[in-house]
Amino acid sequence: MTDARPPAGPSGVLERYAEWLPISDATPRISLGEGSTPLVRADALARRCGAAEVWLKLEMCNPTASFKDRGMVVAVAKAIEQGATAVLCASTGNTSASAAAYAARCGLRAFVLVPGAKIAQGKLAQAIAHGARVLAIDGSFDDALCIAREVTEELPVALVNSVNPYRIAGQKTAAMEIVDSLGDAPDLHCLPVGNAGNITAYWQGFSEYFHAERASRRPRMLGVQAAGAAPLVSGKVVEQPETVATAIRIGNPASWDGAVAARDASGGAIVAVEDAQILEAWQLLASEEGVFCEPASAASVAGLLNADPSELAGKQVVCTITGHGLKDAELVEQIDSDMIRLSADYGAVASALMEGLS
Amino acid sequence: MTDARPPAGPSGVLERYAEWLPISDATPRISLGEGSTPLVRADALARRCGAAEVWLKLEMCNPTASFKDRGMVVAVAKAIEQGATAVLCASTGNTSASAAAYAARCGLRAFVLVPGAKIAQGKLAQAIAHGARVLAIDGSFDDALCIAREVTEELPVALVNSVNPYRIAGQKTAAMEIVDSLGDAPDLHCLPVGNAGNITAYWQGFSEYFHAERASRRPRMLGVQAAGAAPLVSGKVVEQPETVATAIRIGNPASWDGAVAARDASGGAIVAVEDAQILEAWQLLASEEGVFCEPASAASVAGLLNADPSELAGKQVVCTITGHGLKDAELVEQIDSDMIRLSADYGAVASALMEGLS
Repeated sequence: MTDARPPAGPSGVLERYAEWLPISDATPRISLGEGSTPLVRADALARRCGAAEVWLKLEMCNPTASFKDRGMVVAVAKAIEQGATAVLCASTGNTSASAAAYAARCGLRAFVLVPGAKIAQGKLAQAIAHGARVLAIDGSFDDALCIAREVTEELPVALVNSVNPYRIAGQKTAAMEIVDSLGDAPDLHCLPVGNAGNITAYWQGFSEYFHAERASRRPRMLGVQAAGAAPLVSGKVVEQPETVATAIRIGNPASWDGAVAARDASGGAIVAVEDAQILEAWQLLASEEGVFCEPASAASVAGLLNADPSELAGKQVVCTITGHGLKDAELVEQIDSDMIRLSADYGAVASALMEGLS
Repeated sequence: MTDARPPAGPSGVLERYAEWLPISDATPRISLGEGSTPLVRADALARRCGAAEVWLKLEMCNPTASFKDRGMVVAVAKAIEQGATAVLCASTGNTSASAAAYAARCGLRAFVLVPGAKIAQGKLAQAIAHGARVLAIDGSFDDALCIAREVTEELPVALVNSVNPYRIAGQKTAAMEIVDSLGDAPDLHCLPVGNAGNITAYWQGFSEYFHAERASRRPRMLGVQAAGAAPLVSGKVVEQPETVATAIRIGNPASWDGAVAARDASGGAIVAVEDAQILEAWQLLASEEGVFCEPASAASVAGLLNADPSELAGKQVVCTITGHGLKDAELVEQIDSDMIRLSADYGAVASALMEGLS
């Protein structure tokens, strides 16, 4: 055997980051292989925005295809440790997929409370496949979360929304991984902001590593909301949030204070982008970087592209790609596609190729 | 800083397995963060089939959500090294998604030749999002591959189907990762067999590691085909292959000889399973293991569940989960789901929860 043995595969967030998590020997080390996601260069994007380096943290490569798995594994492990046999979440999609997957794996019942309309089909499909009981309520996400909080106070069901602090604790490991990969924190970190748990978690992760001297600095945080669902930009709850980016269609973020603290302590900003800019960034990521993400993920890139290039010169930037494009695959129908129907013969195909090459 | 620094994130197949790949310093080290996928325990499945241990290699966690990325990164890197500016593949879905993604990332044109009917929508959506030109031909997958071979002989376009040996070379790294994670090869490796490139590649990977003394043994290989598309079981080309598992709906596998060699040299088998068994295994993986995969992936598990339990006693088994369930999310409509519509108030939700808990 040679010495240069490659490292073993990822073993999950609870093992890799145990010392940074609120877990004990009594916490079951469950895992679906979450975390240890790729961090890839985005050179086309760097050229467009004027930064020295742009990196994409591909959280869409988690087992349920979104970043939610990092926090869910901690929340479900703690729920099991505390004797729960059922979990509940209010969700616009990604959270329900993740909660249902971990609950299925661990033999817990899962309930998901979804706002009646405008759930991305791919996201609900996951919860159903994993055997969750889906309760569709005639109201908004904010209504659903409010009811979820109330009922879990009374009934023996663990709430696994990001108001559960174990969710935030798990999600902070993404920031730690970025530092572990790059060797230090970046200058700027961009991410989409909906319920604001993730920006809160990243800031916590960067801060803990900074205080432990694992990083020499902390990044400026750029949070990006959709213009139709931008309460943290306007400073006011949005009663009827509207955006194509379903994962961040939230009018009253649960982690409002955490997001504001991350913005202010980092010298960063929370900005809004129009849906058209989100879709443009979404298509650009797919067609120039080879990264097909959910529209909410593209919001962070849209925010970066709106930034003043002079402020980005020489900077190292990381954008979090929160979820996979397959979650909202029906959106692809909006793309002017190039599909051509041909008979099954050499001549027809050769002609079409020649035309495409010219 | 402490000493126990966690490992850096994955850097892609070309860097991690460079010494095992047909690449040189002149080969560009492109990456979308493919490879280094999770290997997770499947204890519920082990109990059902009678094996000592079952592990799932989650190739669905690759960037385009299937195992194809491992081989595609090598094929596209070599195409670039050789001066190509365009790539072409015939594909039932996963290959086109991967080819289109890497081509987009590297500034190459991508053409995908798809059989006219029965392409999983999620899979074609990816190729379109990545800007590939889709040519739908009025014929089967086998017709498409045949034409693809012909036209790429004549025109300046690189063929990136698995008849391209660089694809197989890249895909073999999954077997190497399994050995790197487990410390040795398993007793039995199960995987779905369609065009048969993957079983050929895994056997190559296990064999190279064995000969290099990275593993003390090689596994028995269990290849699983769908009953309606099982040419390697019957020994005869299937003119009209039919199965719910679109990714393995292939009647005349390009790597026929490689599959037979892997089966015979390993003392293994290639078996067929009915669509109903595939769907049962697919639902079982989602509802008991928390793994939502494409139906083709479930074929390998269906094959394992059909095996004689006495042959599995005491054995360590690995099943490859080739692609994400989001690729065929529309199949979830077949599941008897539990969705309940309620008004947005505490009482209605509490009642539904109480009923679900009882």
